[in-house]
Amino acid sequence: MYSFKNDYTEGAHPRILQALIESNFDQEEGYGRDRFTLKAISLLKEKMANPNVDIHLVSGGTQTNLTAISAFLRPHEAVIATTAGHVFTHETGAIEATGHKVISVETEDGKLNPAKIIEVLNSHTDEHMVKPKLVYISNTTEIGSIYNKRELTDLKAFCEEYNLFLYMDGARLGSALCSVDNDLQLSDIPALVDAFYIGGTKNGALLGEALVITRNSLKEDFRFHLKQKGALLAKGRLLGIQFYELFRDDLFLDLAKHANKMANILSEGCRNAGFSFLIDSPSNQLFPIFPDTLIAELQKSYSFYVWEQIDATNSAVRLVTSWATKEEEVRAFVEEINRVGK
Amino acid sequence: MYSFKNDYTEGAHPRILQALIESNFDQEEGYGRDRFTLKAISLLKEKMANPNVDIHLVSGGTQTNLTAISAFLRPHEAVIATTAGHVFTHETGAIEATGHKVISVETEDGKLNPAKIIEVLNSHTDEHMVKPKLVYISNTTEIGSIYNKRELTDLKAFCEEYNLFLYMDGARLGSALCSVDNDLQLSDIPALVDAFYIGGTKNGALLGEALVITRNSLKEDFRFHLKQKGALLAKGRLLGIQFYELFRDDLFLDLAKHANKMANILSEGCRNAGFSFLIDSPSNQLFPIFPDTLIAELQKSYSFYVWEQIDATNSAVRLVTSWATKEEEVRAFVEEINRVGK
Amino acid sequence: MYSFKNDYTEGAHPRILQALIESNFDQEEGYGRDRFTLKAISLLKEKMANPNVDIHLVSGGTQTNLTAISAFLRPHEAVIATTAGHVFTHETGAIEATGHKVISVETEDGKLNPAKIIEVLNSHTDEHMVKPKLVYISNTTEIGSIYNKRELTDLKAFCEEYNLFLYMDGARLGSALCSVDNDLQLSDIPALVDAFYIGGTKNGALLGEALVITRNSLKEDFRFHLKQKGALLAKGRLLGIQFYELFRDDLFLDLAKHANKMANILSEGCRNAGFSFLIDSPSNQLFPIFPDTLIAELQKSYSFYVWEQIDATNSAVRLVTSWATKEEEVRAFVEEINRVGK
Amino acid sequence: MYSFKNDYTEGAHPRILQALIESNFDQEEGYGRDRFTLKAISLLKEKMANPNVDIHLVSGGTQTNLTAISAFLRPHEAVIATTAGHVFTHETGAIEATGHKVISVETEDGKLNPAKIIEVLNSHTDEHMVKPKLVYISNTTEIGSIYNKRELTDLKAFCEEYNLFLYMDGARLGSALCSVDNDLQLSDIPALVDAFYIGGTKNGALLGEALVITRNSLKEDFRFHLKQKGALLAKGRLLGIQFYELFRDDLFLDLAKHANKMANILSEGCRNAGFSFLIDSPSNQLFPIFPDTLIAELQKSYSFYVWEQIDATNSAVRLVTSWATKEEEVRAFVEEINRVGK
Repeated sequence: MYSFKNDYTEGAHPRILQALIESNFDQEEGYGRDRFTLKAISLLKEKMANPNVDIHLVSGGTQTNLTAISAFLRPHEAVIATTAGHVFTHETGAIEATGHKVISVETEDGKLNPAKIIEVLNSHTDEHMVKPKLVYISNTTEIGSIYNKRELTDLKAFCEEYNLFLYMDGARLGSALCSVDNDLQLSDIPALVDAFYIGGTKNGALLGEALVITRNSLKEDFRFHLKQKGALLAKGRLLGIQFYELFRDDLFLDLAKHANKMANILSEGCRNAGFSFLIDSPSNQLFPIFPDTLIAELQKSYSFYVWEQIDATNSAVRLVTSWATKEEEVRAFVEEINRVGK
Repeated sequence: MYSFKNDYTEGAHPRILQALIESNFDQEEGYGRDRFTLKAISLLKEKMANPNVDIHLVSGGTQTNLTAISAFLRPHEAVIATTAGHVFTHETGAIEATGHKVISVETEDGKLNPAKIIEVLNSHTDEHMVKPKLVYISNTTEIGSIYNKRELTDLKAFCEEYNLFLYMDGARLGSALCSVDNDLQLSDIPALVDAFYIGGTKNGALLGEALVITRNSLKEDFRFHLKQKGALLAKGRLLGIQFYELFRDDLFLDLAKHANKMANILSEGCRNAGFSFLIDSPSNQLFPIFPDTLIAELQKSYSFYVWEQIDATNSAVRLVTSWATKEEEVRAFVEEINRVGK
Repeated sequence: MYSFKNDYTEGAHPRILQALIESNFDQEEGYGRDRFTLKAISLLKEKMANPNVDIHLVSGGTQTNLTAISAFLRPHEAVIATTAGHVFTHETGAIEATGHKVISVETEDGKLNPAKIIEVLNSHTDEHMVKPKLVYISNTTEIGSIYNKRELTDLKAFCEEYNLFLYMDGARLGSALCSVDNDLQLSDIPALVDAFYIGGTKNGALLGEALVITRNSLKEDFRFHLKQKGALLAKGRLLGIQFYELFRDDLFLDLAKHANKMANILSEGCRNAGFSFLIDSPSNQLFPIFPDTLIAELQKSYSFYVWEQIDATNSAVRLVTSWATKEEEVRAFVEEINRVGK
Repeated sequence: MYSFKNDYTEGAHPRILQALIESNFDQEEGYGRDRFTLKAISLLKEKMANPNVDIHLVSGGTQTNLTAISAFLRPHEAVIATTAGHVFTHETGAIEATGHKVISVETEDGKLNPAKIIEVLNSHTDEHMVKPKLVYISNTTEIGSIYNKRELTDLKAFCEEYNLFLYMDGARLGSALCSVDNDLQLSDIPALVDAFYIGGTKNGALLGEALVITRNSLKEDFRFHLKQKGALLAKGRLLGIQFYELFRDDLFLDLAKHANKMANILSEGCRNAGFSFLIDSPSNQLFPIFPDTLIAELQKSYSFYVWEQIDATNSAVRLVTSWATKEEEVRAFVEEINRVGK
């Protein structure tokens, strides 16, 4: 049984484990004050060519989202997200648990744009309603699509005009940046959002996300929020070592490229075998539509999520590749769909 | 410079790193549904000779405390803790951030007892005040003392009588259980509290605490709370592998014994050199009182916290030992205090 | 300028003011322990033929909703409401501010039913999502429709089956109970919901809602929640006196009947003048569709909300009547629409 | 049985009821946009000779405190209050329920000063602890003492220096301002605090407190917070009419003067009869120490709180006077203590 269920199915890239071993007996300060974290942060600032951002390493995505968003907002302010947005559906009300409403917007492609947001603003007009304040986007989105530079630039300009914060969930930012359709660089992002995070967990780390805060007014006292939300690891070195290893050369991008390459082989395989997709994804999550009979057959050897029933005899499935996905397994999967066929 | 600042200064015990390497490419379910976590939980239940407890692996102590306590209490219910209690002073209001007051009680020895608690109950008499509901204790306490079986038994009986929950923070439970003064076994604890956690971070793990819920009414839906508070790691295997390794033989206790042994050498060294202690601790945190001149001298080669000024020329310091503390460093420290002397 | 904007435009029914004057110098206990509140509660239990309900008098609807709902739910549990539901859109995220998500459901008629709710349950399947727990309905709904006995009975049976709480916002319950389409009696309601409130503010009181809790498990410690949320008035007598006056005879229902009668004259007037309605409301809120030219003309003499643009030249408006609405003003309004016409 | 239990035992001053009757059928905007509220606010600004403050009328003290404090603070920021402070002990954790810790300070006289506060600041030094941000004082204090101009000026200067907000709970501000020991005027206060409220409930209104926000940065969007916390009454006119009536001439101060005068007769009576006081209060709350035998005798004809046992045979009681206290009852009470004697 081979799994295409997720990009957090294996442990960590071996270089990361090696780095943990090598540093293991160094005595370090706790709570993110260790030398590895400081070096990782310094390196990330270099990579972004931006010494003024604040960076905090956090253990996971929900943790990062809830800590950042609750720190950024006043009690009456709300988040705008798509109905697919991770904070809207898949974090067990984590944002609401910190007191803030998440206003949802229907989209086809998982992406927000000024036209969608202005509708929300127009329907939130006075103090009997929450005040929309933070626009939450994911890149890649929860359905595998990505934002290009033009889209993000427009979104940012819009947010500035309407006095909104723009926050990007980058759980799969590596895959986005390495997509064939991408025209963004990591160093572009700080100027285009108020805060975002670079996902490590889904791109080769044991755990860890690097939250980057670019707007000055959002930086103050952030470590208090981390501690209050249980997000400050005693052995912060564990995060620092990993991010240092991922970014001291191109490892982070190389791992994402591998994931995307594996996805590419899969998607071409599906297309060549005559299958269409629920959504056209240029990243490491694919949503091909298969006959239910094929799905049943595939499930004998592969694990993956059945995403959505399409009609009486077909369903969309989700296939996810990662830094650890093996090319021979991908090719075997493609062979299998050709073998079973429609 | 050698550090006695804390018990989270180094990485993890090498066996843990080895286990991570060996399991690295196993494909596992996410969010604590992996085989390692299941095995670790099963093992812990065996060690406690108690199949009915619920166990959840969480990344850190504050995270565990805030998730558990907020899950257990209704909005008007409050925590009772000592003024030294970690949740009262050192978690940046994490409990209050979930909506609950922490009522504090002054103690000499860092421990709660029925007499202290009854005072709180007697001063919280109607709906204009919060309703005290959960008694928070730490073992070892924040100042190194431990609870014996008699004390815990009395506390539990009292809590049952007054319809209170008893919760034990076990960030340093290993050291408590291996203390020379201890008469408790791990398997005694489930019957003596409603929930507690077994601390991994401060006893040889990279991170991780095992929350054990013994009261049935507190178990329901607990994974929802974990997810909501950002405490459910995508790669839950990271916690499972570590706890499995710590408990598949006696590693967990062996590491704590080592920490205590190192503390013992230190404390005897201090005593023999003529120094007294702020509090008599039988665990891995020591609070010797040194002349400020000696402290200044020691600080040239060692890092540790100066805890409290005692008089014009003396202060108490905190020395912490761990699984990783080197005996030669401990002996060198003792020599140094003898060399410099009073 | 005469106002059809709302049902809280005037003060209170004169009998209520008279009762305040008569009782003014009686010395009473504070915080809802006064004799008037006790009498009002006792009276309400009689009217409902139900001695086992718990009743609390609260100053306003949002206050009642947020206090009750946050007291009833555990942190991971969520509310299900229509997109028009007051708690979803018009309480500035009051429920979310207490930590709970409100899941919204689109409806045509402002009402929830088992089919709508089962969809929500089916899409909330594990701990990565909130747990739907409390069904929030309003009667009358926010768009003037009402629930009949059959609908409520089915909803209650469904909620019992799926272990959900059923909560009814009765801000305009008087108008619902006195509607020509209604087949419910006040005394039917306790058996059909887990909690509800009887709205005073919009039916002749200066302020005040009577929260009725019927499910035993939801009753415990409720006064703590009231106090914590700022909902326990020092001079609780102010609420007690009013509810006693409203219910010591049929005043409450008489006031609602008057409001509905006024609405009837209006709606017949609109219909006779050839106008249709956005929604067919049998209660004190009407949503006729008028030409924008007529609206402009009416706005010279009347204030009311323009609800929704229908097409290029027509809009729906909201007309609200109350216990205080004057029949001559209603008739004058009808004349005016006939005068101006289409 | 005559009550000295509280200052909210009767209804409202007759002029207030009269004003309600006279305005009863005026049609007014809801939610504090009515003409009476606007006039009351305008009047209060005049009385304070300060057009720049923001004023909001709220139904009660706990409601005001929790809405204001939660609006003013970021999640990691905490309140400093005395152990007697109303928000610390008598609001059922209302502040904590909005996420903020209340740090308590022991005092003799119920008052905070820079020396007390600096101790708190010195023990809250990093992100592992909450950040003290808002100093909560009450005037009169919960034990009847008052702040003079020098004390408040010093406190304000200190708060400015340390970047703290100063908030005054004025539930009994009327009594404070009319105390024989007072040297403050209402118009002095805006310059001396960042926000405060003028208590109506305990000084002759049916309900209502006027929150005054003086610091500009705290004013923004405040009505959103009011709505979210259930503090925006639909019939806001009820508060507006009352505050207009209290402040259109000197009624507010006259009522407080009466309360203080009644307290004076009581305190002189006690003193002349040979009794001492737990605390020397110059306002409408008195804490005389009586033999338990006398207390038992008094309880046959009077209701009041027994505050604290002093020794085997004596206890302090609390006697509260108000705008409604009758002089003949006060004199009868004094006679009674003289009659029964020691």
